[in-house]
Amino acid sequence: MSIFITLEGTEGCGKTTQIPALARLLETQGYRVTCTREPGGCNIADAIRAILLDPLSHGMAARTELLLYAAARAQHIDDVIRPALDRGEVVLCDRFADATRAYQGAGRGLDPGLIETLNDIATQKLEPDLTLLFDLPVEVGLSRARQRQAASDGPAEDRFEQEALDFHHRIREGYLRLARENDQRIRIVDASGTIAQVAQRVESTVLGQLGITR
Amino acid sequence: MSIFITLEGTEGCGKTTQIPALARLLETQGYRVTCTREPGGCNIADAIRAILLDPLSHGMAARTELLLYAAARAQHIDDVIRPALDRGEVVLCDRFADATRAYQGAGRGLDPGLIETLNDIATQKLEPDLTLLFDLPVEVGLSRARQRQAASDGPAEDRFEQEALDFHHRIREGYLRLARENDQRIRIVDASGTIAQVAQRVESTVLGQLGITR
Repeated sequence: MSIFITLEGTEGCGKTTQIPALARLLETQGYRVTCTREPGGCNIADAIRAILLDPLSHGMAARTELLLYAAARAQHIDDVIRPALDRGEVVLCDRFADATRAYQGAGRGLDPGLIETLNDIATQKLEPDLTLLFDLPVEVGLSRARQRQAASDGPAEDRFEQEALDFHHRIREGYLRLARENDQRIRIVDASGTIAQVAQRVESTVLGQLGITR
Repeated sequence: MSIFITLEGTEGCGKTTQIPALARLLETQGYRVTCTREPGGCNIADAIRAILLDPLSHGMAARTELLLYAAARAQHIDDVIRPALDRGEVVLCDRFADATRAYQGAGRGLDPGLIETLNDIATQKLEPDLTLLFDLPVEVGLSRARQRQAASDGPAEDRFEQEALDFHHRIREGYLRLARENDQRIRIVDASGTIAQVAQRVESTVLGQLGITR
């Protein structure tokens, strides 16, 4: 049985760190698992991702950003997500359409109708079966993200981490509102504490949702 | 007085070759002229153009292509076209929204409603004052495009020139239909013959449209 699971949350919420452990957990339950991420996940979408995350793209128009996310999503679905679901696998996707609703909708204040129009064009109504929303105070997440940056050799903070604190607060609130409006699909995971603590919460949430006890 | 002029046509129709002479003509009439092109025309849109024209992007989903053109157009309008029109200049733009209607609509058979939705998002209703449609038999244009390619050191044929002949025929017919439906805005220019012959037709068409006699 194919299952489409998305992981969402604000900067530094730790969702990406949790994916390998969640994949192993599901594999021990007999599932075949494909892990992927947005924006990106295939060649064309990775090229689009590079434009979106480039700090040089600072003057990007809000509607350009929205159109690029939709373009990357459309290709990613066709190249990666749909084929894996058609093979009967579990797909774990790091960010999906809710990220556009939270970042571009709640964060940038773009027209929700426009966002849904573009999400519909991109997804052709493909919806996750389960979305894990990693929630924690914005300041904690940004501090984690900054530590990660300092520990890496990579480029300085990306475009989103440079945004004002208020922008990140609006995104968190947007995500929590989505969770209230989609309480069957979206499960909130407390993302504070250690990686092991969060992993345990993810495990019980996912196994509970799949009806697995152990 | 600002004037927005777009140049359209199938592969090898010669429109790009005509732009410098048309710009000089308008400058001798006292206009300030900005020449630009789509997809591209500014940094972000040029990066999107590189993805669109890359032969490696062969597996691109039709709706991804449409979303990328719209993204590039939105940015190009904000960065280049609107500011030049606001300064009272003539903008000469090599391809614009009609190209999406002809290539993705008539050529690829994508939903015209979807195309108009995305054109509207990108252009926010900005329309050319005048569109020059360079028309000639598809075979003549493709043969010109191939000669240009052979004479250059650049990469082999781009993605669009590789398409089947039938695709190019549908594009030409799509353009001619647009000209019939928008006969106030779109003027057909016979693009056969020498560069000098076509230049003379462009000159009389543009000057006539602007009400200039000489």
